[in-house]
Amino acid sequence: MRSDRVAYDVTVARWEPNARERLESAALDLFVENGYEETTVAQIADRAGMNRATFFRHFADKREVLFGGEDVLAGLFADAIKSAPLGATLTECLQAALAAAEAAMTPQQRAKAAQRVLLVAANSEVQERGLLKHARIARSISAALRERGQDELAARLGAELTMLAFRVAFERWMKATDDEPFSPFATAALSDLQARAAELVLPSRLSA
Amino acid sequence: MRSDRVAYDVTVARWEPNARERLESAALDLFVENGYEETTVAQIADRAGMNRATFFRHFADKREVLFGGEDVLAGLFADAIKSAPLGATLTECLQAALAAAEAAMTPQQRAKAAQRVLLVAANSEVQERGLLKHARIARSISAALRERGQDELAARLGAELTMLAFRVAFERWMKATDDEPFSPFATAALSDLQARAAELVLPSRLSA
Repeated sequence: MRSDRVAYDVTVARWEPNARERLESAALDLFVENGYEETTVAQIADRAGMNRATFFRHFADKREVLFGGEDVLAGLFADAIKSAPLGATLTECLQAALAAAEAAMTPQQRAKAAQRVLLVAANSEVQERGLLKHARIARSISAALRERGQDELAARLGAELTMLAFRVAFERWMKATDDEPFSPFATAALSDLQARAAELVLPSRLSA
Repeated sequence: MRSDRVAYDVTVARWEPNARERLESAALDLFVENGYEETTVAQIADRAGMNRATFFRHFADKREVLFGGEDVLAGLFADAIKSAPLGATLTECLQAALAAAEAAMTPQQRAKAAQRVLLVAANSEVQERGLLKHARIARSISAALRERGQDELAARLGAELTMLAFRVAFERWMKATDDEPFSPFATAALSDLQARAAELVLPSRLSA
């Protein structure tokens, strides 16, 4: 039974090496060339040298092919929080999450991201899917923070702050020169936001 | 020309009094009775005593009829921030925004909201539209905060915190007994979140 499964995996790998990545690249190219609306799943699969069935084995629909990276990010954030050192503060958990994003923020991803940003901005159906993905990432961060002993509100606040820091870092990273690593942008964005948060917190603390 | 327009408005008012509210109520009733997917725009219009064209004069599509309240909220938040006293702090602007939500959070809205929460949770297409609405409310809050002299990051952080406080307050308000006003929930949620934010801010401030 076990050897059957291994044999099957090898077969799939032989026929569809990096299938997800190839489908994502093909989709992005076609969306840019012909427009998102005008591109069909069949065309994406064809460009990637596969068939429609293979596309749907990897993505639930046409929009989903634009957000594979979001699923990766959700995993990276949650794993980093769960494996942060014992006794890590809330801030340290968020720093660990943002530092872990580095693995997904490669120069190749950066090139694709620029195209994706334009596509998402131009199509509200795609934008909606992006927001659903972001809400799911936030939920996975807040679940990980609760596992680390944070209460419900601290976990949700921490998740929103991480997402906002990530978005700010991402925007700045996209404007920077090509080969800069993502981590310093993430660290700076979180710290800039914490400075703004101080204004929201300190007056009431001082008057308490 | 001017009197023409007034006459036209009167005519519309005579033929479609509270058209939006009636369409919203009819839609909610039908979604609960027959399911969201199964309900057509024609059925909604028919239940409200109108025709499809009237529906589409008020709402862009079937999903939109569930989120009329979100547009109202965006306006209430932004107006409250813009008309906060000169020299109001960021916190005072957020408090003003949340206090203004009261106008939209009537007992009737509360009854409808319970149905809407179930519908939104059960359908990811509807959930996506809700997230798009929330993103737009956040943008309108952050634009209002920038008008009040807050920088880009403070405005975005303030918007996210307002939205989170609103969601937390809303969840608690929905669990409370029927006739409680919304404002105290909003005030408490913001202040609870500020207490959690202190944990995210103070250590780095103290070590600075």
